[in-house]
Amino acid sequence: MKFSKRIENMIASPIRKLVPVADRVRAQGIEVIPLNIGQPDIPTPPDFLSAVRSYDVNVLEYANSRGITRTLETTQLYLHNYGLDFTLDELLITNGASEGLSFSLACTCDPGDAILVIEPFYTNYRSIAESQGVRLIPITTSVEDHFRIPGIEAFDAVYEPSMRAVLLSSPSNPTGRVYTREEMQVIVEFVKKHDLFLLADEVYREFNYTDRPFYSFMQFDEIRDQVVLLDSISKKYSACGARIGSIATKNADFMAHALKLAQSRLSVSTLDQIGAGAMDIVDDQYVEDNRITYKKRRNVLQRRLERLSGVVAPTPEGAFYNILRLPVEDAEDFILWTLHNIRIDNTTILLTPAESFYSTPGMGRNEVRISYCIDETKIERAMDILEKALREYPGTTAQKPADLHVENPPV
Amino acid sequence: MKFSKRIENMIASPIRKLVPVADRVRAQGIEVIPLNIGQPDIPTPPDFLSAVRSYDVNVLEYANSRGITRTLETTQLYLHNYGLDFTLDELLITNGASEGLSFSLACTCDPGDAILVIEPFYTNYRSIAESQGVRLIPITTSVEDHFRIPGIEAFDAVYEPSMRAVLLSSPSNPTGRVYTREEMQVIVEFVKKHDLFLLADEVYREFNYTDRPFYSFMQFDEIRDQVVLLDSISKKYSACGARIGSIATKNADFMAHALKLAQSRLSVSTLDQIGAGAMDIVDDQYVEDNRITYKKRRNVLQRRLERLSGVVAPTPEGAFYNILRLPVEDAEDFILWTLHNIRIDNTTILLTPAESFYSTPGMGRNEVRISYCIDETKIERAMDILEKALREYPGTTAQKPADLHVENPPV
Repeated sequence: MKFSKRIENMIASPIRKLVPVADRVRAQGIEVIPLNIGQPDIPTPPDFLSAVRSYDVNVLEYANSRGITRTLETTQLYLHNYGLDFTLDELLITNGASEGLSFSLACTCDPGDAILVIEPFYTNYRSIAESQGVRLIPITTSVEDHFRIPGIEAFDAVYEPSMRAVLLSSPSNPTGRVYTREEMQVIVEFVKKHDLFLLADEVYREFNYTDRPFYSFMQFDEIRDQVVLLDSISKKYSACGARIGSIATKNADFMAHALKLAQSRLSVSTLDQIGAGAMDIVDDQYVEDNRITYKKRRNVLQRRLERLSGVVAPTPEGAFYNILRLPVEDAEDFILWTLHNIRIDNTTILLTPAESFYSTPGMGRNEVRISYCIDETKIERAMDILEKALREYPGTTAQKPADLHVENPPV
Repeated sequence: MKFSKRIENMIASPIRKLVPVADRVRAQGIEVIPLNIGQPDIPTPPDFLSAVRSYDVNVLEYANSRGITRTLETTQLYLHNYGLDFTLDELLITNGASEGLSFSLACTCDPGDAILVIEPFYTNYRSIAESQGVRLIPITTSVEDHFRIPGIEAFDAVYEPSMRAVLLSSPSNPTGRVYTREEMQVIVEFVKKHDLFLLADEVYREFNYTDRPFYSFMQFDEIRDQVVLLDSISKKYSACGARIGSIATKNADFMAHALKLAQSRLSVSTLDQIGAGAMDIVDDQYVEDNRITYKKRRNVLQRRLERLSGVVAPTPEGAFYNILRLPVEDAEDFILWTLHNIRIDNTTILLTPAESFYSTPGMGRNEVRISYCIDETKIERAMDILEKALREYPGTTAQKPADLHVENPPV
């Protein structure tokens, strides 16, 4: 039997592939602080499970392929509160934002076609594209430059006719950037100039720690029919286990095509939709409290990271991730070494290697992604462990005091 | 902007595309008996919702990409009771059998590669294949021949090197065939001879009205590493709204590839998995009672169909579908005409046109699929309506008494 080339080319999730190793360490009685995964520790609004518990039916039936009306209406109201107005026909409930992305690539790209991405990007962009034989064309942003989006020349330089869309997240997973209107304008100009779709992953919309209000790509009227908004309740309502996302677009043809894909998978979980439909009764304060909580965590993390010599870590402005450059050659080796060798109070940490958040070969090898979905005390403990690991790791490239060539040693 | 060729080629679900029309008829206060969709009316085991209701957590977290251990173990036990033994590593929980199929095509086929199918086939085989640019090569079976699988010569005649797998369901949706060991042996010999994967959709395993015990493709030892079993709890536990299916395979490489796809969509609904995990406490009698219920329905339906002149309808042996040939040229036109024109006691029916259950152009145009997930009284009422519709439809091709050339008219 033969496997497909696309599946053989597909990478395993770097976020999830080290999990079995961490599980083996946990099995030895060691606590492993999870800095690897975007699984919030904030309680899900109790209204979610309440709605599910009071859903009393004899038969758990298929939902409509587009989504349950109540769930669509809740999504509509949620977007309306951000000044984004859609009819129910312009919305589609998906199995998380992942399915929304998967549908979007299927609607826009044949195998061999390309998508422009801003690297480092959410690593599943790459795996979903690879699973469909879609190429990624990266615009590289860097730690040193705080992951700023470059001018349109950089985009025009990589444009090719087989490019079908631009895909990016803002606030960004994994960099934590919240793009400015000026940076967004570059993207808008580019997609308008080349008549591309813009797949805007805005699942971290609520997690904005800047003084600038959140601005959506949907608010640029000049590309109104080109934007496809991808969303999910996972992060904003701390409900990752409910696989509920959405596609919102003013492009009726796109929606008609996406609906065919939705019909081919029949429906999204009825119970998850019942819970998600009730999210319109969640107090705005819930979201604001979370934002404040994460901003504090961000501050604690950043204060600690700035003390680490040889570490380059721009301050994240949103989401709950950070990309750091470490004084090591191979971040994955460092992560595994730490997991096996570094303990403080019987505790260690798990980080995510950042290499596969880039598609340019070799980029990001000395970088890691940190997810700070844990409380401040745990962040402090995790940073103690990271500090110790960086001090003791044999493969460090940082100059240690003993290595320094000192002209006039003190006597 | 451009859409992909694969999405433009993709058909809309024939099962779901007439639903909005039926909804408009319902909005006029007309009852529409749904003979179109495989949505069982049997109550879901109460243990499903009980397990979900007593799942008490603060945070609704991501599940493991492979599945929750309890859910995997329940799947393992279920298969064991059919004499099919798998380790947990040989199992993967999917978003319904649809996702299992979607993963299987991604693992085995690049765009342009082909899958052999037995037509008429479950129409979503076609839509999922089209969405991935995978070609279907059909072996045609026919109403007249009771949808029997032909000898291996017919298979060898269509074999080509880009063929990667055989995909079929048994008991079959939409024909209701439960294949004999001899028919299965043809498939087994073919996949062995050409070193193909065999994607065996056995979601209707419980719905077998023959005296032959259910036999799984997994029981043919000679192709043990080539079989990928696709399953779902939707039908057996009347839980279509829970999107829970599974892949079971002895092929470790296949599973490793499928797991990459599972990681790229993160996880399957946690709540649905909690419910599905509790299905090990469902009494065997539940399944047996359902089987008896459906067998009675099948008998009622068949007795009525046999009375309809011009209708060819082989007796289904399993699942809860039937393909009938009608005395019309265009079944879709007949279905729409009936929906708009035929009423008995303010009630009408919705059928599914069978044309897109075939990939050979023109096949099945005068056929419909009936799903008999409704009680016997409703089946009788639905058949009254179908009888009236066939009598009054202006496009009938059946010879009416007045048209018959009678040599010696009675005097």
